[in-house]
Amino acid sequence: MSRRIEKNATSITVALIQMSCSLTPADNLKKALDRIKQAAKQGAQIICLQELFHSRYFCQSEDDDRFGLAESIPGPTSKALAKAAAAAKVVLIGSIFERRAEGLYHNTAVVFEKNGALAGTYRKMHIPDDPCYYEKFYFTPGDAQPGFKPIDTSLGKIGTLVCWDQWYPEAARLTALGGARLLFYPTAIGWHLKETPEMKAAQADAWELMQRSHALANGCFVCAVNRVGREDNLDFWGGSFIADPFGRIIAKASPGKEEILLARCDLSSIDWTRRHWPFLRDRRVDAYGGILSRYLD
Amino acid sequence: MSRRIEKNATSITVALIQMSCSLTPADNLKKALDRIKQAAKQGAQIICLQELFHSRYFCQSEDDDRFGLAESIPGPTSKALAKAAAAAKVVLIGSIFERRAEGLYHNTAVVFEKNGALAGTYRKMHIPDDPCYYEKFYFTPGDAQPGFKPIDTSLGKIGTLVCWDQWYPEAARLTALGGARLLFYPTAIGWHLKETPEMKAAQADAWELMQRSHALANGCFVCAVNRVGREDNLDFWGGSFIADPFGRIIAKASPGKEEILLARCDLSSIDWTRRHWPFLRDRRVDAYGGILSRYLD
Repeated sequence: MSRRIEKNATSITVALIQMSCSLTPADNLKKALDRIKQAAKQGAQIICLQELFHSRYFCQSEDDDRFGLAESIPGPTSKALAKAAAAAKVVLIGSIFERRAEGLYHNTAVVFEKNGALAGTYRKMHIPDDPCYYEKFYFTPGDAQPGFKPIDTSLGKIGTLVCWDQWYPEAARLTALGGARLLFYPTAIGWHLKETPEMKAAQADAWELMQRSHALANGCFVCAVNRVGREDNLDFWGGSFIADPFGRIIAKASPGKEEILLARCDLSSIDWTRRHWPFLRDRRVDAYGGILSRYLD
Repeated sequence: MSRRIEKNATSITVALIQMSCSLTPADNLKKALDRIKQAAKQGAQIICLQELFHSRYFCQSEDDDRFGLAESIPGPTSKALAKAAAAAKVVLIGSIFERRAEGLYHNTAVVFEKNGALAGTYRKMHIPDDPCYYEKFYFTPGDAQPGFKPIDTSLGKIGTLVCWDQWYPEAARLTALGGARLLFYPTAIGWHLKETPEMKAAQADAWELMQRSHALANGCFVCAVNRVGREDNLDFWGGSFIADPFGRIIAKASPGKEEILLARCDLSSIDWTRRHWPFLRDRRVDAYGGILSRYLD
């Protein structure tokens, strides 16, 4: 019954944990667990960790040995997260380099309930491959059916998309159409050290703009959490933020510092915004078939 | 042969004509024709007029008499535009309240070639209906098959989407997948006079943000042209702009003044941007089926 009441909650306090990662996974896990505790003390009801928070961003080169970082679900990291969720009584979104089977690895978001139960998982669907982001080497793309589906929690449906997914309006749309009121994007995005200040600014702007547009197009909250700190060739730009259903930023973390970013998300603003900007009402679902094509040549 | 050479042009100069409209359609047409001439003198190769430039924005109430403003294509306004395109030797995008048949009216973008030939038309697909924007009363939604298709011109393929379409990532995506390198959005969007300054700013920001996101998601240019001036209950906010394939604004008009906004669009930046941010490469076309649903409940 409490579950039902909470689903009708009029607001949810979200916390995003923006942190740097050391070379020692155990230290990163300990840091994350400490921050989860702190965020809960500050009133957080849903907490989201950054992408692959357990280690440095290992995809900067293609190295067989790094598959050794992967874990099963359940596994040590997911168990520690489940325990942390239960202890803090929060819905917790983590990100795990998942070993699904021998030679089959995923970049997976995991969601735990307030009692530590696994609420659901999402395996990253769009996999990048760029210099210093050699993710296609490591991660098999998600293959769930449907591929984009919110995860049902005691606080309602939430979307967990991961990093490169953030550039795809389709992913946000599908997850919102599935009923997600908040979209979370655990992220690891940084600047190549050699880039110009102008290009760095443009990249961080573009990253923020694209995700704000998902909030706006779909009338839902978007919560993006990114790591900070220099790791090899990349300088992760932080800038975690929470946008409201009209795409306005209601909380934003600094570009270079560790931070627990909190915001109270007023869920009634979803319906209010969609009534005033009724984009979902007017979609031409009869005319979108070409979206399923690679290119229309 | 010149057509072929131009299609390989490495840049195109775009002009957007942001203007106010009087109560006299003939005056508005004259103003538009004058500005087309001026823009061409300034080097414009493609010129785009604002939505329904021929009249005040008549959809602020539901009034049968206003169907009298509509015209066939070809009709007097389209013929005047064709002539202007030929005289100025430009590709010209106009916007017409189209009378397709008795009791069947559309909000239609028309594209003329440099020699005055009709290159194509696009009937607005997404139709709004909000206080002071009673468009569902006037406009039948577009029914072309496919609904979103670029128009082929001597300067390459361009997309002509119209106003409310600008809030739909699907429309931009489909038109870009069809090969459009520039997306044009003739627009009539304004503030209700009673809105707060804070909400006005948020609305104009949202409008710009959403369209910049289409440039970014699709790696193409976006050119949005809006009217200015107070008309009854609405204050049209202008702010016409041109964004590059990374979503950066390269030219922007003032909020309240008439203006011819020009920008040179470097077409080589499309491939450059898409190589560096290869979003089209990684789309999960196998997993987007739900986009064709109204809601996934």
